[in-house]
Amino acid sequence: MKFDVFTLLPGVFEDYLNSSILLKALENQLIEVAVHDIRDWAPGKHHVTDEPPYGGGGGMVMKPEPVFNAVEAVLGDKPDCPVILLTPQGKVFDQKTAQRLAREPHLALICGRYEGFDERIRTHLATEEISIGDFVLTGGELPALVLIDAISRNIPGVLGDPDGAMTDSHSEGLLEYPHYTRPAVFRDWEVPSVLLSGNHAAIENWRREQSLARTLERRPELLDRAELSETDRQILQKLGWKPKERSA
Amino acid sequence: MKFDVFTLLPGVFEDYLNSSILLKALENQLIEVAVHDIRDWAPGKHHVTDEPPYGGGGGMVMKPEPVFNAVEAVLGDKPDCPVILLTPQGKVFDQKTAQRLAREPHLALICGRYEGFDERIRTHLATEEISIGDFVLTGGELPALVLIDAISRNIPGVLGDPDGAMTDSHSEGLLEYPHYTRPAVFRDWEVPSVLLSGNHAAIENWRREQSLARTLERRPELLDRAELSETDRQILQKLGWKPKERSA
Repeated sequence: MKFDVFTLLPGVFEDYLNSSILLKALENQLIEVAVHDIRDWAPGKHHVTDEPPYGGGGGMVMKPEPVFNAVEAVLGDKPDCPVILLTPQGKVFDQKTAQRLAREPHLALICGRYEGFDERIRTHLATEEISIGDFVLTGGELPALVLIDAISRNIPGVLGDPDGAMTDSHSEGLLEYPHYTRPAVFRDWEVPSVLLSGNHAAIENWRREQSLARTLERRPELLDRAELSETDRQILQKLGWKPKERSA
Repeated sequence: MKFDVFTLLPGVFEDYLNSSILLKALENQLIEVAVHDIRDWAPGKHHVTDEPPYGGGGGMVMKPEPVFNAVEAVLGDKPDCPVILLTPQGKVFDQKTAQRLAREPHLALICGRYEGFDERIRTHLATEEISIGDFVLTGGELPALVLIDAISRNIPGVLGDPDGAMTDSHSEGLLEYPHYTRPAVFRDWEVPSVLLSGNHAAIENWRREQSLARTLERRPELLDRAELSETDRQILQKLGWKPKERSA
C-alpha cells in the first residue's frame, strides 16, 4: 500500500510513522508513506496557502491552487487512486471503511486546515471525504495518521498475529470482552476464575457474553448492525435487549 | 490546562505539539503537556509492560502494575482530576465532550495498547473511558493527541480569532457551509456570486441554508440533536426533511 500524504505540516508524521507496528510495516515494505508539503506548490514569493473567506467571517480557508498543483504534480492530472479529503464534513470513518480502503494499492490523503477548504477542492479534486468524528481539529494531520494506522492494521502481514485484527473491538461490530493478564491477583482484585480454568469452551462463552453485555450497556445502537447468532440474541434478550424491528 | 499523558511511546508527541496552534498555546502557557513513559514504572530488569491474556487468544494485554504505578507516582494515590483511558470501548468523543473537558484545569490521559488494557485499570484507576471512533488503532497515542488538539481549541485565548471555534462544523451540531477564497475564478469554477455581493444578510442566509442542506444530505441524524430555529425547520422541510417525533 502506498500512501501519498499532502499536508502543510510535513514534520508531524515522522515520529509516529517510526513507532512500533508502522515502523515494521515500513521496513517490511508492506506500506510506503510519502509526505508532500503543499506549500512547495504554492505560487508566489510568499507561498501563500490560505486566505480569508469570501463573504467575511472568521478563520482562514485553504486556497485551491496549491492543493490542485501538489496533487496533480505527484499523481498526474487524473489520479487513478482514491483522493481522500480529511474534513469534519466527511463520511464518518469506521472499521468497515478501514477494511475497504486496505484493499486499495494506493491512497492519496489531503490534510490541511481541517475546517476550511475552498469548496472547489471538494467538488473537483477529492473523490471521497472522510471525518474521524464529530469534533474539530486544527488540521487533517491527525486524521490522516489515524487512517494510516487503522488501514495498515488490516493489510495482511502488518500485524504479527494473523488473527489480531479480527477479534479487536469493532471488527465484528461489538465491543470487546474484558482482558486480564498477570498477576492473577493485583492488590485485592482477582482475575475471573473462568479465565484460569483451562476450559476453552467456557472461556469462549464467557467472553462472548461479556462482549454482548458490554455492547448492550455502552453502545446498544451497535447491536442493530452486528452479526448475531440465535444464542447471542437469547443472551441479549435475557439482559433486557429490545431489538429494533427488522425491516422485511 | 495541564495535560499529564501516560504512554509507551513518549517520542511520538513532540512533533505534533510543536506545530502551529498548539505550539503557540504552549508558549503562551495556556496549556501545558507532560508526557510520562509508563515503562519507567514497570518493575523488573526487563520493564515488561504487557503479557499474553489469561484464557488464551491473540494479542497482548497491558499489565496493571506499571500503569497504576505511573499514574499514582505522578498524581498521587487519589488523583483529583479526570483520569481518562483512551480505548475503543469508551464513550465516543465529540465536540460537546471537548467543550466540557476544556473547563477542567487538569486532565490525565492514559494511552497504551489500544485494544487490550487489563480490566483492573478500567475498573479501579480510570474515571472515564473515551473512544475517538469505531475503529481500531495500535495505541492510544493518536487519540490522546486528538483530545489535546480538540480540547485546547476550546480554551479561551488558544485560537487567535475569538469566534473561530464557534462556527466550526459540529460546534452548533450542524456541518459547516461551503467556504471559498481567492481566486474568484479558478480554472472554470466560480465563487457563488452572493459571496461577492457585500450583502451581509444575504450571505448569512445563504450560509445557513447551505449548512442545513449539507447536514440533511450527509448526516441527517445530526439534525435531531441540533439547535434549530423555526426558519431552519421551514427550510429543512422544504428540502424534504422529516423530523423525528419529539418526545413530550
